Amino acid sequence: MFFRTDLAVERREVFKRANNLNDEIDGIKIETSLLDDIKITKVKIENEKGANALKRKVGNYITIDINSINNLSVEKEREIINVFSKELKLIINEHIDKDGEILIVGLGNLNATPDSFGAKVVENIEITRHIKLFLPNVIDKDVRGVCAIVPGVLGTTGIETIEIVKGIVENVKPKLIIAIDSLCSKNIDRIGKSIQISDTGIVPGGGVGNRQEELSKDTLGIPVIGIGIPTVLDAATIVIDTLNICDIRINEDELVNKLKLNKFNFIVTPKEIDTLIENITAIVSEGINMSF
Amino acid sequence: MFFRTDLAVERREVFKRANNLNDEIDGIKIETSLLDDIKITKVKIENEKGANALKRKVGNYITIDINSINNLSVEKEREIINVFSKELKLIINEHIDKDGEILIVGLGNLNATPDSFGAKVVENIEITRHIKLFLPNVIDKDVRGVCAIVPGVLGTTGIETIEIVKGIVENVKPKLIIAIDSLCSKNIDRIGKSIQISDTGIVPGGGVGNRQEELSKDTLGIPVIGIGIPTVLDAATIVIDTLNICDIRINEDELVNKLKLNKFNFIVTPKEIDTLIENITAIVSEGINMSF
Amino acid sequence: MFFRTDLAVERREVFKRANNLNDEIDGIKIETSLLDDIKITKVKIENEKGANALKRKVGNYITIDINSINNLSVEKEREIINVFSKELKLIINEHIDKDGEILIVGLGNLNATPDSFGAKVVENIEITRHIKLFLPNVIDKDVRGVCAIVPGVLGTTGIETIEIVKGIVENVKPKLIIAIDSLCSKNIDRIGKSIQISDTGIVPGGGVGNRQEELSKDTLGIPVIGIGIPTVLDAATIVIDTLNICDIRINEDELVNKLKLNKFNFIVTPKEIDTLIENITAIVSEGINMSF
Amino acid sequence: MFFRTDLAVERREVFKRANNLNDEIDGIKIETSLLDDIKITKVKIENEKGANALKRKVGNYITIDINSINNLSVEKEREIINVFSKELKLIINEHIDKDGEILIVGLGNLNATPDSFGAKVVENIEITRHIKLFLPNVIDKDVRGVCAIVPGVLGTTGIETIEIVKGIVENVKPKLIIAIDSLCSKNIDRIGKSIQISDTGIVPGGGVGNRQEELSKDTLGIPVIGIGIPTVLDAATIVIDTLNICDIRINEDELVNKLKLNKFNFIVTPKEIDTLIENITAIVSEGINMSF
Repeated sequence: MFFRTDLAVERREVFKRANNLNDEIDGIKIETSLLDDIKITKVKIENEKGANALKRKVGNYITIDINSINNLSVEKEREIINVFSKELKLIINEHIDKDGEILIVGLGNLNATPDSFGAKVVENIEITRHIKLFLPNVIDKDVRGVCAIVPGVLGTTGIETIEIVKGIVENVKPKLIIAIDSLCSKNIDRIGKSIQISDTGIVPGGGVGNRQEELSKDTLGIPVIGIGIPTVLDAATIVIDTLNICDIRINEDELVNKLKLNKFNFIVTPKEIDTLIENITAIVSEGINMSF
Repeated sequence: MFFRTDLAVERREVFKRANNLNDEIDGIKIETSLLDDIKITKVKIENEKGANALKRKVGNYITIDINSINNLSVEKEREIINVFSKELKLIINEHIDKDGEILIVGLGNLNATPDSFGAKVVENIEITRHIKLFLPNVIDKDVRGVCAIVPGVLGTTGIETIEIVKGIVENVKPKLIIAIDSLCSKNIDRIGKSIQISDTGIVPGGGVGNRQEELSKDTLGIPVIGIGIPTVLDAATIVIDTLNICDIRINEDELVNKLKLNKFNFIVTPKEIDTLIENITAIVSEGINMSF
Repeated sequence: MFFRTDLAVERREVFKRANNLNDEIDGIKIETSLLDDIKITKVKIENEKGANALKRKVGNYITIDINSINNLSVEKEREIINVFSKELKLIINEHIDKDGEILIVGLGNLNATPDSFGAKVVENIEITRHIKLFLPNVIDKDVRGVCAIVPGVLGTTGIETIEIVKGIVENVKPKLIIAIDSLCSKNIDRIGKSIQISDTGIVPGGGVGNRQEELSKDTLGIPVIGIGIPTVLDAATIVIDTLNICDIRINEDELVNKLKLNKFNFIVTPKEIDTLIENITAIVSEGINMSF
Repeated sequence: MFFRTDLAVERREVFKRANNLNDEIDGIKIETSLLDDIKITKVKIENEKGANALKRKVGNYITIDINSINNLSVEKEREIINVFSKELKLIINEHIDKDGEILIVGLGNLNATPDSFGAKVVENIEITRHIKLFLPNVIDKDVRGVCAIVPGVLGTTGIETIEIVKGIVENVKPKLIIAIDSLCSKNIDRIGKSIQISDTGIVPGGGVGNRQEELSKDTLGIPVIGIGIPTVLDAATIVIDTLNICDIRINEDELVNKLKLNKFNFIVTPKEIDTLIENITAIVSEGINMSF
């Protein structure tokens, strides 16, 4: 029934359209706001009914949609960073104390541009855990301890991400994880220009379609905040969008199934994906740093 | 009338199908051979008639199709390198003397995985020009002088590739250029697994759709051999292939035009494109080195 | 007679010490200022006498010394950028009109950390020439046309930097060049923490000791502003500094000569050079962007 | 009493010279062989006496010295790989069964050229663990399961290497670790041209002087084979070598102490270290792959 998308906000739209719903989905609460041209949509999945509808866990999913990401003025960039950082801080503080140590996990593959977002953000995070441990005098007491790992992908490590992260959690004992990854969207206009924050964890490789065991409180025992940006489109999306342009109507379920059977193992991404990722990485990493 | 493809061998197929031709196209000569599972197809465009049909210049276009590129045995890899190197050597020797200096141009964008092929090959080329100039005693006299440049892309340099290469040709005065780039194919099975060699030059950015002024004897005054591998599919290809799977027939011309009007500025590439490029880069760079 | 150093301010000190000069060197004018803890020293070589003393060309050499580069506050970083940008702007405006196009040349070797500074700065420069040429409507008329090239090093291209840059100058016809490179200092405290701006050009490979033909008005026909940061120490420096610590006096000329004869082809660089370069790159690239 | 060096073979030489020993050190057994110009030296520390003398653990230390690493012929390179692989295989088979799973740990900092060796080797290791787990039919039963991790450095992760590796060992349960790192030598001729294999573990950051808790059977519970190549010289080495050239005799202990007091936190490395590392990485990674 679904186009492939990792954004709760899009899964909700598709469900409503597929079921011809005018009212809100049972078990879903929605809240939108606009700050200049920055759109914030908060999807709350309140119970199992909502979870079944969106095929996502009970919890909060915040999407920040930016209108344009290239050639931002310094002020505009600052505004976006502030909006994102404020939302992230709220969600962090709901789960841990002010001095709880945080582990950042940069998911994805540094060697494949559309999948490199998570690892690139980590490069720009200010790491403080070792300073607090070994040189506590040179750092402000109020700064949180932050550490980070880029676990790599199954194809180059032979190890599932959950196995690496679980081991670090057991030895380092952080209070919360922020896991960062590329996502898949069904909307061309969101690629490189939207940020989803959720407090229900993340599934590594979701965006590029190599799904592994999720990182979440259920699997790791501590809260996992997921931060994702859409960097790829599902191949089915582009086919169906094209057919719409051509005024051809087809049974979308059937199409998606046939694509699956034929193992279309392709990603669709904008030509300027390297620049898009560079721009959004600067915003997300700065916003994360500001939250600590 | 065409799907977008940079491979002469595919443009010929499409032309024949579109025109319901059973005989060979007027002005085109074709020659195929098979070495184990390595398929070599030589398309010769003999005159303007053939050139108009394929919308490519008069000259030679050799395509080497490899069946599989992952987990090659050492022997298989060696066989592919030998086949490629032999064809390249033949085409080089048709145009210059044994001691003519060669300039390698690695086109594309190192920061965008599917477009990074040209630059990555250059990293593995054995550069000898400066040794022949400054330390002639330490190098075998029979080795050709080879130099190389990675000019970068318009978006990060602000300079067209032709402006950079023209300047180097004027100052360094090589006898021949080998220009290496990513290409666009209409056939999923060729991505990362085919090599096209041509003696008619190359259009930078062809594969990823940011076409610039060609590098060729016409623009640079010396022969330009193009080496390309398909790393991306045209978005139209994936749409039409999907419709075929679903048994939907549409007017393909109309579809391509509509996609153009809607500026679908996307690339379609396999998920494992980073591994594919790593493997084919090793083959192409080793094959080029062996040709000198 | 000299320790190896690329900084005019250090060459002056060494000359004065070697000649027991209390007064200023004939042909040299010096001007210093202090902004908080940012020290600016302007060495003007006024005539051939001064040029012979410092073995540098007649012209201006501005050194900005930063006290500390790690963990800068946002305000401190902004202050340093402003100081640097102001000096750079002054020197640019002395040589060309407000709308004169500028070519940035990022010298050095991206694969060798201490030599990667020039290439890394270029990655962060805002390139506008192609936008002004092809999309003049989307860009402010007052913005200068800026283009850039990373020519690579002789060992990986086989082409001298001057040959590449000369060709681009002839084809692109910029009005001024800004060339950026790593330098060699004799003072440990300056590594990664000083910026030299000069209007007399630059010698590629100076810092790492592979000197090539200079980029300057004499060789290229247009003004060349050099921007360099010290990233390496000469091996002789560390030897002599050590001997001073141990209170051993030796004839320094003799030492330097003996080191030369024994071809000590080593570079000495701080352990944290990757972090130092990352920090100073952010300052220099932002400062350059602000100057246009 | 020691120059800083991580090579057992050099520590033995220094100890013998410092103590004017003509006979072998008590507790040390030495064995040398020569294959063409490839020199193999096996230092066996047999008991605590030997361990105290060399300040290294009881165990085996094999050093392979290559005469020249640039411009190797294909045959010569193959010969070196075979020698290295044979020694590595012997030492692996002493500790685990033929089908025991191996974890490769690539130590060091990918962003600092002389410290990037360990991480670069891992990029070229054939990873098989996930294939054996998820697609057992596509892989030869006799191939060992191999997985790998590049844990990063304390400064960019905030986590000590031992904490990351311990966690993976607990979750993945490999039978043996191969840990790869850059080392420090006191001999200029060994930089980039020697390989040390030992079965006593490795201290992360040893080469660049940021020593952390060792990876060894004592700390991890499974055997740890260390593979290192010298990529840096200690600063004291270059000073003392220079003084020898100048025929100046000093008390070396005093010098080393004074350098320590003055916190000379510098690394000394050849100018062409990027090329040296590229060459030796190809040999070591191929040799490791052949051992499985």
